[in-house]
Amino acid sequence: MIGGGRGSFIGAVHRMAAALDGQIELVAGAFSSDPACSRLTGQDLFLDPERVYPDYVSLLEKEALLPADKKVDIISIVTPNHLHAAPALMALDKGFDVVLEKPMAFSLQEARQLDQKRKETGKEILLCHTYTGYPMVKEARARIARGELGAVRKIYGEYPQGWLHTFLEGSQHKQADWRTDPARSGAAGAMGDIGTHIFNLIEYVSGLQVTQLCADVRTVVSGRRLDDDGAALLRFNNGASGTLMATQVAAGEENKISIRVYGEKGGLEWHQQDPNTLLLKWPDRPAEVVRTGTSYVSDAASHNTRVPAGHPEGYLEAFANLYRNFALALRAKASGQTPSAYIADYPGTTEGVRGMAFIDCMIDSSRAAQKWTDLTV
Amino acid sequence: MIGGGRGSFIGAVHRMAAALDGQIELVAGAFSSDPACSRLTGQDLFLDPERVYPDYVSLLEKEALLPADKKVDIISIVTPNHLHAAPALMALDKGFDVVLEKPMAFSLQEARQLDQKRKETGKEILLCHTYTGYPMVKEARARIARGELGAVRKIYGEYPQGWLHTFLEGSQHKQADWRTDPARSGAAGAMGDIGTHIFNLIEYVSGLQVTQLCADVRTVVSGRRLDDDGAALLRFNNGASGTLMATQVAAGEENKISIRVYGEKGGLEWHQQDPNTLLLKWPDRPAEVVRTGTSYVSDAASHNTRVPAGHPEGYLEAFANLYRNFALALRAKASGQTPSAYIADYPGTTEGVRGMAFIDCMIDSSRAAQKWTDLTV
Amino acid sequence: MIGGGRGSFIGAVHRMAAALDGQIELVAGAFSSDPACSRLTGQDLFLDPERVYPDYVSLLEKEALLPADKKVDIISIVTPNHLHAAPALMALDKGFDVVLEKPMAFSLQEARQLDQKRKETGKEILLCHTYTGYPMVKEARARIARGELGAVRKIYGEYPQGWLHTFLEGSQHKQADWRTDPARSGAAGAMGDIGTHIFNLIEYVSGLQVTQLCADVRTVVSGRRLDDDGAALLRFNNGASGTLMATQVAAGEENKISIRVYGEKGGLEWHQQDPNTLLLKWPDRPAEVVRTGTSYVSDAASHNTRVPAGHPEGYLEAFANLYRNFALALRAKASGQTPSAYIADYPGTTEGVRGMAFIDCMIDSSRAAQKWTDLTV
Amino acid sequence: MIGGGRGSFIGAVHRMAAALDGQIELVAGAFSSDPACSRLTGQDLFLDPERVYPDYVSLLEKEALLPADKKVDIISIVTPNHLHAAPALMALDKGFDVVLEKPMAFSLQEARQLDQKRKETGKEILLCHTYTGYPMVKEARARIARGELGAVRKIYGEYPQGWLHTFLEGSQHKQADWRTDPARSGAAGAMGDIGTHIFNLIEYVSGLQVTQLCADVRTVVSGRRLDDDGAALLRFNNGASGTLMATQVAAGEENKISIRVYGEKGGLEWHQQDPNTLLLKWPDRPAEVVRTGTSYVSDAASHNTRVPAGHPEGYLEAFANLYRNFALALRAKASGQTPSAYIADYPGTTEGVRGMAFIDCMIDSSRAAQKWTDLTV
Repeated sequence: MIGGGRGSFIGAVHRMAAALDGQIELVAGAFSSDPACSRLTGQDLFLDPERVYPDYVSLLEKEALLPADKKVDIISIVTPNHLHAAPALMALDKGFDVVLEKPMAFSLQEARQLDQKRKETGKEILLCHTYTGYPMVKEARARIARGELGAVRKIYGEYPQGWLHTFLEGSQHKQADWRTDPARSGAAGAMGDIGTHIFNLIEYVSGLQVTQLCADVRTVVSGRRLDDDGAALLRFNNGASGTLMATQVAAGEENKISIRVYGEKGGLEWHQQDPNTLLLKWPDRPAEVVRTGTSYVSDAASHNTRVPAGHPEGYLEAFANLYRNFALALRAKASGQTPSAYIADYPGTTEGVRGMAFIDCMIDSSRAAQKWTDLTV
Repeated sequence: MIGGGRGSFIGAVHRMAAALDGQIELVAGAFSSDPACSRLTGQDLFLDPERVYPDYVSLLEKEALLPADKKVDIISIVTPNHLHAAPALMALDKGFDVVLEKPMAFSLQEARQLDQKRKETGKEILLCHTYTGYPMVKEARARIARGELGAVRKIYGEYPQGWLHTFLEGSQHKQADWRTDPARSGAAGAMGDIGTHIFNLIEYVSGLQVTQLCADVRTVVSGRRLDDDGAALLRFNNGASGTLMATQVAAGEENKISIRVYGEKGGLEWHQQDPNTLLLKWPDRPAEVVRTGTSYVSDAASHNTRVPAGHPEGYLEAFANLYRNFALALRAKASGQTPSAYIADYPGTTEGVRGMAFIDCMIDSSRAAQKWTDLTV
Repeated sequence: MIGGGRGSFIGAVHRMAAALDGQIELVAGAFSSDPACSRLTGQDLFLDPERVYPDYVSLLEKEALLPADKKVDIISIVTPNHLHAAPALMALDKGFDVVLEKPMAFSLQEARQLDQKRKETGKEILLCHTYTGYPMVKEARARIARGELGAVRKIYGEYPQGWLHTFLEGSQHKQADWRTDPARSGAAGAMGDIGTHIFNLIEYVSGLQVTQLCADVRTVVSGRRLDDDGAALLRFNNGASGTLMATQVAAGEENKISIRVYGEKGGLEWHQQDPNTLLLKWPDRPAEVVRTGTSYVSDAASHNTRVPAGHPEGYLEAFANLYRNFALALRAKASGQTPSAYIADYPGTTEGVRGMAFIDCMIDSSRAAQKWTDLTV
Repeated sequence: MIGGGRGSFIGAVHRMAAALDGQIELVAGAFSSDPACSRLTGQDLFLDPERVYPDYVSLLEKEALLPADKKVDIISIVTPNHLHAAPALMALDKGFDVVLEKPMAFSLQEARQLDQKRKETGKEILLCHTYTGYPMVKEARARIARGELGAVRKIYGEYPQGWLHTFLEGSQHKQADWRTDPARSGAAGAMGDIGTHIFNLIEYVSGLQVTQLCADVRTVVSGRRLDDDGAALLRFNNGASGTLMATQVAAGEENKISIRVYGEKGGLEWHQQDPNTLLLKWPDRPAEVVRTGTSYVSDAASHNTRVPAGHPEGYLEAFANLYRNFALALRAKASGQTPSAYIADYPGTTEGVRGMAFIDCMIDSSRAAQKWTDLTV
């Protein structure tokens, strides 16, 4: 693991997600740009001090020299956005598969570089669009793909949060600090942090691609250096339309990412804060409440579920699904097999490059006088 | 009553709403452009056949000649949009107060004429934006007006329906038929029918005005002659922004108008399909579930409630609140008194003119290449 | 109308319910045991002073003498329990049909007398078990009757309220006052006021009868003279079992009557505070959300619905369904026709007698040392 | 680990729960009474084959001989009920701390023996009443303990499931098979499997003890050898009363354990299928929606939460809280420290003995002719 030292939020999440299924063991880390912090974090995690490194370069160099049965297989990079590309490129070069936090990089150009390097090295990248790991998101995608809703006409995606409704970066808040800093976060704040999630969820669930959008991106909280709010009208490659909303100033909201899709024959909706339920709506018969862990859901949903219906699974399980599928896919590859479709179904560089293009498109559109801006990769 | 013959939807709703509180009695009508239908409807309603008229002109002329203690006081006009202005103008001229269905008229010009006539005659117009009659909508408005949320920053208004997801007007469906006919509905279909409702709700609850919008208005169902779907980015007169959605092709949705407002200090949300609940959300303490009929709500909410908490009130009660407040305001006026603020709080021509301007602005913006279009009255 | 003077809760409810559908007109009343209050109430209601009577005896005697086309057809009795039987018996004797509040009488003996008198006079009684007027309650009954759940095995009925969680009768609260007074309420407080409602709902929805119960009835609030809380284990005539709960001391609850029924093949649940939804649950497929006003519900549900799906109907509409069905059934009878099954479907003396037997059984069982007490009519 | 071989449900849950926080590592096991199955399970889990044992006796004997820094610290016993006591007693004797599935034993007598042995050996037992591990259950307990509801008056606990609504044990269903077999499950089926959970939840949240109950326990599904359904009236040591329901034949239900508590000043409710929400209800102000991961919850709730508000935590996290607290408490003990109150807050033998007494009391009461049966430990 690179990053994720004491006090980190997402580093701890990655460790829990990776540990849950007993498929992946954390054995080495460069947890912080501060070597002392890295060392202490290693202690907290009961790691062999030999494999707790002061920086990512040492980690990658030294681990690469270890014998195959000892060295790490996967490098998880959980640093702020500006520190994704360099360690990831080096890890790929050294022959490691890579887990990367989203957005994939600091810029679209970096994202393209990573995608290129992945292809050159033949290694794999998992990009942590966690919300696609939920069983009911898989179910939604499967049902739309099967044509249950008919042709998709309307998509409404939302990601309201409230935690940045005040100038939190003014009070030594580590998470707020780097996310609102252009030097570490990139061209966008909220659009990169959560906009890319809802954009990815929309494209993943619908199987469609956004071709054009018209955005209004804003900085609502005074003094903030990056956007904290945005909305857009969307156009899709099949002629459908929709809206996307992402805001971090919806005071009182927690983490309410949700999606609604309507087709010719019916609609569906999913809300991350009630993740084990997928609602199907029909014009001529009762709405149906599809639930995680039941006997009637798709293989994709079942495979990504651990406990019977009525035993709620949440965010960490969704995250763990990414790790587990990545690990299973790598094992399959290592043994020369083709992983099943629902194992190979994890986000990677294709999604990452589109996400970076989305960020640029939102920012460009918001500044433009004309209505529509093309989203091109 | 003008319109509302057998088979009409909204005419029956008006009659129930007017009857509920025992303040208004239906005594005369011209229920249809077909005199026989008008007569039969009169019979259904146990009316004196003498006061069931073959057309609105006879009704207004003859009723105007009756003695003051006998003639009708209020004329309810529940016809399609193209038949609002003429009977309303004549009714005002003849000295009647008027109840009008929304949108107020066939065009912005007609709406301005009605507003002008109302001022000239000194009579009153009630415009049936039903959703503002709900107690929890009153409560939302009251709390925002009191500053409980702080300055408003974001407003999200939605009105998804699904009933026009097929070409219903092709199968002799009376409601679908006129609403999708430019000659009877006006410049817009869904934007007039339900777009004006959510626009009105947004302005009513927030106390703000939309100054600019950027719209994408569509006709999704093939063969349809007017729009059935739309969305817009919004800008408000205090600097806030938001989105508006109104669609009649969200297959599987019923009548799910809802609003969310976020301010500096918190947020609120209200859903018409669960109308007796208003949710207040706070960043630093539990969300609160405000309920109709409780001891702690505003006078505005209490006044518009009939039964104790836990006895659900619905659409007809909200509609009846418009009628009751209008009747009470007219009584107060008749006796030279000033009605209390929450009695005088019913929608009228100001809201009607803004609604017609909204329709034009949505259509214009949707056709425009530039992003923002001013909403001017 | 007998009772329902200024300040009354249920009298106003009856008037709104009766007025809603334009089938019934209020023309006469003895609204209070205080003639002045009766007179003022009549004024509030715009009644002819001639037909506002100082007491129920005058009302019944004088109305009986009026010509058939003038006199009232139906007498609504909305007084406290101890004043049900006498006016009802007299009304029946004078040839009027009767609407009665629940519980039907002060005692089981009175209830039997009323049932007997109804049979002798050939007149009709409507007993206001309002909750059976909801469309989704009709739907639940229809689906169970059709066998959709298979044989019923378990029934859970609840009626929690919180309004009597303090000694409210100590502070001049009219509603609390008579309901907790043995001289006016009868043998029971909460068991009569709300216990009979949930008991009726259980038997109505399931189509079964309680044969035995085991109760724990309590007076929780110190100083109270009647019960305010109770629960019972139930046994039904088909071998099913269940529980019943009714309490008025669940501090914070409004009026949360609900029912759940499970059969061999599935279950259903209905909650009065969300009345337009009926949830069907299945072991092998998604739960279904059945909704008022949709195209797919039973005739019984459709007949008792006024507005399209998504326009909430509530307590007053449910109440109005009782009145409307009663009026339609009386009209059918008057014209020698048999009303359709869903019109004749309103609660009457059979339900009333069973309700009074239920009250006695709850009180007896609670005092008994043995577990089970038979419920016999 | 003892038990939990391939195909086991709860064994896999224990492994995930133990792994989540990186505090506990699985290193040895006797996973099945079939040595081959045990060996294969060990392979699945990447264990050293040397430490995968053919039976629990070998495991305990051999591990006890290993050096302190190598041998296991904790023995998790995840076998059917009849195989709890023997390995647990031996594990305690050999100096291991023990994790036990509920109900604690096959009989009350065995439970007392285990409690006694624990005291004699000075070792610790964690009993897996998972539902008490949820943060919002901790919050509920904390708020009641602080007196926020005033004195508790009413408690309603429910645990409806539907998975045994058919004769599932007739079709080679491993989970159904042993749970309905008196030789493996004990005196009760559903009352032991889920009745003990809701009983424990009631006592844990309220801080009260059941002193008497009146039960109706049933076998609904024909051919079944143990109970699959039950309900009881409850009396508590502070004079409060309530009801308990536990059924496995509520066709269509998943795992809907829930609790409602009402005191003099307000009420609360918690539903396991929406576990991150605790609803507080007040008679004189809006209900409050308390949420996991927020800034305002108790230390007990915060300590048992891993991710920020809006990132759902579920069943596995609740389970992991038991393991983590047990591990932290053992570490504290090992280093001579007193763990904080919310770390020491895990269920153990006291709860286990009460649970077994509850089972006996339910069965005895159900067979008794008298109403109340004392629950004595």
